[in-house]
Amino acid sequence: MIPQADDEDLEDRLHEECGVFAIMGADEASTYVALGLHALQHRGQEGCGIATFDGERFHNERHLGLVGDNFTGADLTQRLPGRAAIGHTRYATQGANILRNVQPLFADISSGGFAIAHNGNFTNSRALREELVESGAIFQSTSDSECILQLTARSRKIKIVDRFVEALSQAHGAYAIVCLSKKKIIGARDPLGIRPLVIGRRGDAYILASETCALDIIGAEFVRPVANGEVVVITMGPTGKAEIESYFPWGRQAARPCIFEYVYFARPDSIVDGMSVYEVRKRMGERLARETGVDADVIVPVPDSGVPAALGYARESGVPYELGIIRNHHVGRTFIQPKQEIRALGVRLKHSANRDVIAGKRVVLVDDSIVRGTTSRKIVQMIREAGAAEIHFRSASPPIAHPDFYGIDMPTREDLMAANLTQLEMKKQLGVDSLGFLSVEGLYWAMQAGERDPLRPQYSDHCFTGDYPTKLIDHHADRAAKDFQLSLLADSSSSS
Amino acid sequence: MIPQADDEDLEDRLHEECGVFAIMGADEASTYVALGLHALQHRGQEGCGIATFDGERFHNERHLGLVGDNFTGADLTQRLPGRAAIGHTRYATQGANILRNVQPLFADISSGGFAIAHNGNFTNSRALREELVESGAIFQSTSDSECILQLTARSRKIKIVDRFVEALSQAHGAYAIVCLSKKKIIGARDPLGIRPLVIGRRGDAYILASETCALDIIGAEFVRPVANGEVVVITMGPTGKAEIESYFPWGRQAARPCIFEYVYFARPDSIVDGMSVYEVRKRMGERLARETGVDADVIVPVPDSGVPAALGYARESGVPYELGIIRNHHVGRTFIQPKQEIRALGVRLKHSANRDVIAGKRVVLVDDSIVRGTTSRKIVQMIREAGAAEIHFRSASPPIAHPDFYGIDMPTREDLMAANLTQLEMKKQLGVDSLGFLSVEGLYWAMQAGERDPLRPQYSDHCFTGDYPTKLIDHHADRAAKDFQLSLLADSSSSS
Amino acid sequence: MIPQADDEDLEDRLHEECGVFAIMGADEASTYVALGLHALQHRGQEGCGIATFDGERFHNERHLGLVGDNFTGADLTQRLPGRAAIGHTRYATQGANILRNVQPLFADISSGGFAIAHNGNFTNSRALREELVESGAIFQSTSDSECILQLTARSRKIKIVDRFVEALSQAHGAYAIVCLSKKKIIGARDPLGIRPLVIGRRGDAYILASETCALDIIGAEFVRPVANGEVVVITMGPTGKAEIESYFPWGRQAARPCIFEYVYFARPDSIVDGMSVYEVRKRMGERLARETGVDADVIVPVPDSGVPAALGYARESGVPYELGIIRNHHVGRTFIQPKQEIRALGVRLKHSANRDVIAGKRVVLVDDSIVRGTTSRKIVQMIREAGAAEIHFRSASPPIAHPDFYGIDMPTREDLMAANLTQLEMKKQLGVDSLGFLSVEGLYWAMQAGERDPLRPQYSDHCFTGDYPTKLIDHHADRAAKDFQLSLLADSSSSS
Amino acid sequence: MIPQADDEDLEDRLHEECGVFAIMGADEASTYVALGLHALQHRGQEGCGIATFDGERFHNERHLGLVGDNFTGADLTQRLPGRAAIGHTRYATQGANILRNVQPLFADISSGGFAIAHNGNFTNSRALREELVESGAIFQSTSDSECILQLTARSRKIKIVDRFVEALSQAHGAYAIVCLSKKKIIGARDPLGIRPLVIGRRGDAYILASETCALDIIGAEFVRPVANGEVVVITMGPTGKAEIESYFPWGRQAARPCIFEYVYFARPDSIVDGMSVYEVRKRMGERLARETGVDADVIVPVPDSGVPAALGYARESGVPYELGIIRNHHVGRTFIQPKQEIRALGVRLKHSANRDVIAGKRVVLVDDSIVRGTTSRKIVQMIREAGAAEIHFRSASPPIAHPDFYGIDMPTREDLMAANLTQLEMKKQLGVDSLGFLSVEGLYWAMQAGERDPLRPQYSDHCFTGDYPTKLIDHHADRAAKDFQLSLLADSSSSS
Repeated sequence: MIPQADDEDLEDRLHEECGVFAIMGADEASTYVALGLHALQHRGQEGCGIATFDGERFHNERHLGLVGDNFTGADLTQRLPGRAAIGHTRYATQGANILRNVQPLFADISSGGFAIAHNGNFTNSRALREELVESGAIFQSTSDSECILQLTARSRKIKIVDRFVEALSQAHGAYAIVCLSKKKIIGARDPLGIRPLVIGRRGDAYILASETCALDIIGAEFVRPVANGEVVVITMGPTGKAEIESYFPWGRQAARPCIFEYVYFARPDSIVDGMSVYEVRKRMGERLARETGVDADVIVPVPDSGVPAALGYARESGVPYELGIIRNHHVGRTFIQPKQEIRALGVRLKHSANRDVIAGKRVVLVDDSIVRGTTSRKIVQMIREAGAAEIHFRSASPPIAHPDFYGIDMPTREDLMAANLTQLEMKKQLGVDSLGFLSVEGLYWAMQAGERDPLRPQYSDHCFTGDYPTKLIDHHADRAAKDFQLSLLADSSSSS
Repeated sequence: MIPQADDEDLEDRLHEECGVFAIMGADEASTYVALGLHALQHRGQEGCGIATFDGERFHNERHLGLVGDNFTGADLTQRLPGRAAIGHTRYATQGANILRNVQPLFADISSGGFAIAHNGNFTNSRALREELVESGAIFQSTSDSECILQLTARSRKIKIVDRFVEALSQAHGAYAIVCLSKKKIIGARDPLGIRPLVIGRRGDAYILASETCALDIIGAEFVRPVANGEVVVITMGPTGKAEIESYFPWGRQAARPCIFEYVYFARPDSIVDGMSVYEVRKRMGERLARETGVDADVIVPVPDSGVPAALGYARESGVPYELGIIRNHHVGRTFIQPKQEIRALGVRLKHSANRDVIAGKRVVLVDDSIVRGTTSRKIVQMIREAGAAEIHFRSASPPIAHPDFYGIDMPTREDLMAANLTQLEMKKQLGVDSLGFLSVEGLYWAMQAGERDPLRPQYSDHCFTGDYPTKLIDHHADRAAKDFQLSLLADSSSSS
Repeated sequence: MIPQADDEDLEDRLHEECGVFAIMGADEASTYVALGLHALQHRGQEGCGIATFDGERFHNERHLGLVGDNFTGADLTQRLPGRAAIGHTRYATQGANILRNVQPLFADISSGGFAIAHNGNFTNSRALREELVESGAIFQSTSDSECILQLTARSRKIKIVDRFVEALSQAHGAYAIVCLSKKKIIGARDPLGIRPLVIGRRGDAYILASETCALDIIGAEFVRPVANGEVVVITMGPTGKAEIESYFPWGRQAARPCIFEYVYFARPDSIVDGMSVYEVRKRMGERLARETGVDADVIVPVPDSGVPAALGYARESGVPYELGIIRNHHVGRTFIQPKQEIRALGVRLKHSANRDVIAGKRVVLVDDSIVRGTTSRKIVQMIREAGAAEIHFRSASPPIAHPDFYGIDMPTREDLMAANLTQLEMKKQLGVDSLGFLSVEGLYWAMQAGERDPLRPQYSDHCFTGDYPTKLIDHHADRAAKDFQLSLLADSSSSS
Repeated sequence: MIPQADDEDLEDRLHEECGVFAIMGADEASTYVALGLHALQHRGQEGCGIATFDGERFHNERHLGLVGDNFTGADLTQRLPGRAAIGHTRYATQGANILRNVQPLFADISSGGFAIAHNGNFTNSRALREELVESGAIFQSTSDSECILQLTARSRKIKIVDRFVEALSQAHGAYAIVCLSKKKIIGARDPLGIRPLVIGRRGDAYILASETCALDIIGAEFVRPVANGEVVVITMGPTGKAEIESYFPWGRQAARPCIFEYVYFARPDSIVDGMSVYEVRKRMGERLARETGVDADVIVPVPDSGVPAALGYARESGVPYELGIIRNHHVGRTFIQPKQEIRALGVRLKHSANRDVIAGKRVVLVDDSIVRGTTSRKIVQMIREAGAAEIHFRSASPPIAHPDFYGIDMPTREDLMAANLTQLEMKKQLGVDSLGFLSVEGLYWAMQAGERDPLRPQYSDHCFTGDYPTKLIDHHADRAAKDFQLSLLADSSSSS
């Protein structure tokens, strides 16, 4: 048998819960959605879906797996015709039977067909769901996003935008949502703007997307971010050009976007709320070098997430940056558990030490963060076996000591290394000669945000500080999405 | 290219809309359901599903295709554990995206998990659905059966049986339904008993099934038919034996079961409402010979549906019964349209003439019925080309001149041969030397039912007589299941 | 878990080793081959293949499974273009890795491309193979048929027909072979004509096929059987019409075709070497009634193979013929072993007793033959449980006491019931009230062949008599195809 | 429709024709082979195969696709048991029907089972094949590697090593081959050592592999490279340890390994013939900076192949190294051709410009080489659209003006940009402000090889110099593998 590539490693990553994309006013709209979702693939590899409206009927296709493996083929625009479309990518988990959770979710409601795609998490989804079921609602998925669909279906308002806003008003938490009705595409970002959403334009079409990289891939121009608490409605104007209107149904307040988008999630070439992610990450590394500098021979990034911070670190410290770890891009998903003797080889399926660069050297290993620490430990061991004289581990973000409830798939507190161990214990357990983290102040410096305002922090930085941006309504709300106590254990179906 | 086997031929068959099976009180209940559904496979080959309850959780598996291709494998009872289970087979149609219509349908409703499997058709399903959607219900399928699930979810009654009965009270038409909740299996047959349902027993377990052949395959004893308008509730008694209770929530009235079960649908080895299907069919042939006798050399059945009637005909007439048509059992589903020249060969993919028996002979061709007439015409042509001297076509049932709205998938009136042509025109179009049908009186004679009571007919014989057993609430109700005007054209999903 | 449908039952059948079909001179030749192979599907369901030549290049497609599941689709003639084509169906076995054994086998030999399809068995294939390997030949399959391909490749003759005949001259046993080269289709039948092959004509095209039913399906006219020891060569004449030439490279001798084609293999609507298979089988039943008559209430055929003999038996005896066993045509291939308690239900997946016809009756059960006896025993038990008063089993052929080495996949002597038990023991083991077999004389009578000539029997009847038509060169030659001692246990490949 | 990701881009890469791996003396040998092939996946993604010997029988599994998608699963060592195994990865091509070309190739030859896996190309394969076919050989593949198998099968020598050496003696060109017989693993490297092969050791086992990275992944120790013209034979010694013997059947001569392994093929963490590939590449960049320096603001590598050279370039020039191009690792294989309007977006499926780093900057773009120039042109255009002020393209190898015939899948001369255009024309066509190549002298300097010896060059550098290391026997030998004029156009088979 063969070492499992990644199960433990996968668990030792943070998972964004999705990317969304919408476009109105372009021929072959589904092509643009497919491209946009492909650019957002880093936000979720578990599943993907596209819903379109062709002027008469809706079409919806949802799949497990990657965009590039599913939304292709010469018949794509036949399968998904129309000038208006929305799409969704979903993060990777184990577990087979999840197709019915893949979005866009669709329903025929009394105002007509309605499709939604959601990035984020509702912190009161459990209570909402129980109430809905009590009054006779039948859920098709176990996803918290479906509450919004059910609430929209039950609204007594006439207009779809009013129905949708009424539904959103009952939900708490983080969201960037795009919806498709017969006449409209609606986008909404939660009142704090925790999850990102941007507006783009291409010819006559308007676009909504989680990140600017999804605009770049289709050659669209970046217009502006959707503001926190903003609802935008895109319709077709009389001249055949898409038009956009903006609403603030819950008034205005200060934004507090999730700082983890900069630390880990967003693609480095994206501009999130006005900041270049790549530049922020290099500045994290630069500041990290200043805060945790050490005598060393080489700076080695953990690929690919540690690369920009390692470049910043190397530049600030003057120590050469080297590719000390080679990443294998051909890792299959299904390598499985080996006999004990070669189990330790597992990490090498994905990473291998560049022995020539490591042997006899004092190595500074730079990664973006430490979550469970399991992968970090294996990488340290691999570097050690390649002959490093010293290993100094540097995290380009502060210790992660608090779980997230806003759409990041994160281990529970018990599994977060920094929530359970002192830095001395962590150093020992990782097997490194020294361990350093960027400070929260350093993080704000890298964001060019000045000092952190302790009363009204400029970012949702709760994973580092424990300072949650909203009241947490459900007890154990973080578990809601996972263990909603459904009667149905498994509903597996196939067309084979 | 290759001739299409069967598209036209398939259309020229009547399709039952399903078979149902339920069992409570047996280890590995899903195994028995799989066997029972296999025995009911003739009632539907489009899809099949099984839902079980294992004492803690529900499990549901639904597939397109045959029982024997899906509910097999050493892990079946792991996949579908429990001592209580229900199952469903669904009739064959073209059209890809139908998995979400395959039953059992399942929902978490406020009283807990609930699964239903339905054979029949609700004649007011369109009105019910519109009303439900108006008030915020979200449907997962386009099936009329889901109305009952939604109505049960919305009932304000406490007990599941009361909720279910309340739901059924709002539905009109024909049904044999089995349901599974945490503690109960519920079965119900519509007030006229249009669709069949029987009770069986095997050891400690009680069984419900569409036909007795599904009891035979698992070695269960036939107890009795469920009566028209009866609701039966199976629970586990304190001693570990299943117990059964009976209710008549809508009072008692005379039954009027569908006579087509005897003519075509039921398996010949089933006993339906006390009558051997095989014996009835032979008597139809016997009477047919008396009513339409003709000088002939051989009696040839159209296999397999015409075989019992042909035996009866031959015995009565004294003319030898011969296998003049050989059926090929290996027909793949996907043969496609040929060039014009060999298109006419299509029927031969499934049937071939046994030339040696036919050539130079006066042939009486016996089939159970004539629907569109397309297949009959092709078979006649094939027999003609094999050299028959004369061809006398005999239908073992009266002319089908009226569509069904109670769960038989039947062409519309415009496509029913006998609704549009005189018998003389039919004879000409079929290309036969004579054409004969069993009379309605003959049919009742074969049923050993005495005279047909014109005021209160003993059977639902509307396809022959136009005398429908219930008021037809939806205009064009027969179309309801097919063209419910959904916004969503296609929702195709896959896990590949 | 669920009872295994058929593993034991499948083993208790005789399996023909193939059907062949060839056509030259028709547009879209592959369509005709697909249809012809479909009609020959009863001769083999394991695999199927078609090779064509389009005037420039050869095309070859081979699949596991049924013709109708593989050689379909609008692109068939694009995939397999050309006016000359051959095809093959192969009998069903368990065992996964057999694709490379599926025919037509193809090779680029020095005279150009060459494809062959073979029905039969070479009794000296093991010796041939060892000799070829010794001199450097590399085999692609484990099939005995490949020896002919290798020998043809190595021939020093110039013309392809000469090469092929030289190759055949070294092989002993039974064969009906069709081959495709750039300019020719060649057909050959072994010197005794053990396996069948016929010539047909359709428009400008000539056809070769194992049985006449494959001519009927494409509307071709039956020309004549290929004679024993005849080689026919089809070419395109100057006027665009196919032309046929005939050779007897090994001279002429008396034919001795396999009598089992009449007893079991051939389709009832085929004419084999001038005799209607259906008529012969009815006569077997008629004679069987005379030889083994008994007082009874019903004659029940074991479907489908026992039907014609049962009709003959019923007619001769005057006892009514009834459908006492219903066959389920929807049996999936993969039902698996159940727990012991319901294992005995296995036979009911395929057959079910028509209780109403059986209960309290004295039943004569008619089948074509008894091989291992395992299925027969289960059917008897099922009939017994359905309440039969007496069961009289009748085999429409003599006891099978000797294995076949000429292309029938048959159990070894140890597994043949009649080779190991007296008729009294068989009666006891089957659990019947009486047991009767047709005599060898009766068989010849049914063939209208007069007396069996003990010195030069008119048929290959060795399974009943032990009188083999050729010398058996390989020791255990019957095993050759199965356990050729290959070094390679498994060569499994996939394109997934 | 959606832009094709990579068809053109894929064509604009060089493709190694394979990686090989062999191990003798380890339990679960196939696990090690799977891991080793995974580490060699960069040498070929089209197909992969493993053959093992379990002491009694051989096992062979071959698949299209990646190692990690095929050689996994808990049953791997059941499917491929044994302590001796060889494996192969094959480069990616379009074209469906290639399974029979995937290696190891296996044959039962007179000395027993024999499996081979080959990296390289025989320059006289066409002549060899024609000769073999003429004398009756039947080829199973269109691969040139099969000639060696056929020649080994035909050898009259007794011992397998002698047979194999005799076969190799008739073949010209480049090869690193590993073979498996019942008792031995044999490895061979061509007389010039054009393709790489190394020896490793792990516990009692000996290993052969194309690169050292395949030793690292299984924790094996690097012993030494196989020398040019060396044949090594691994057997099991009496004490259970593998033993290795070495032969030089064609005497000794100076080596001339392929310099392209350093430029592009080998993984950066491999040591090839004693040199660190990563270090050589950095030195190429360093020298490139010296030879082609230019005023600039940022050094941007074309990921991933240009990264080490860009690091060397940046270090030498003092200009900052930046991630100006982000690579998307989730590219599906099947994105297809878009409408013209968005076709140009194709390159962005795989690469996207990091606008923030590029806009307004003078950019030095560093890649390892320029082949057709099509991808380079698209990347330049993308960088231009991202707002670069100047673009200076630098190739870390000399212009490729001559095709390869030794196992690199390379465009023909007509498609090599540098074979057809002057550097000025190339600059114009690429749309860059300046264009620079490393000199051949610079390349040798980077190899630390001193001056290139014009009479006996130390490397096979023919792609840059036209100085081919062997006589080219077949006219158009480079085409041999591709267009061997087979009669059979397509042999597609499936088990579905």
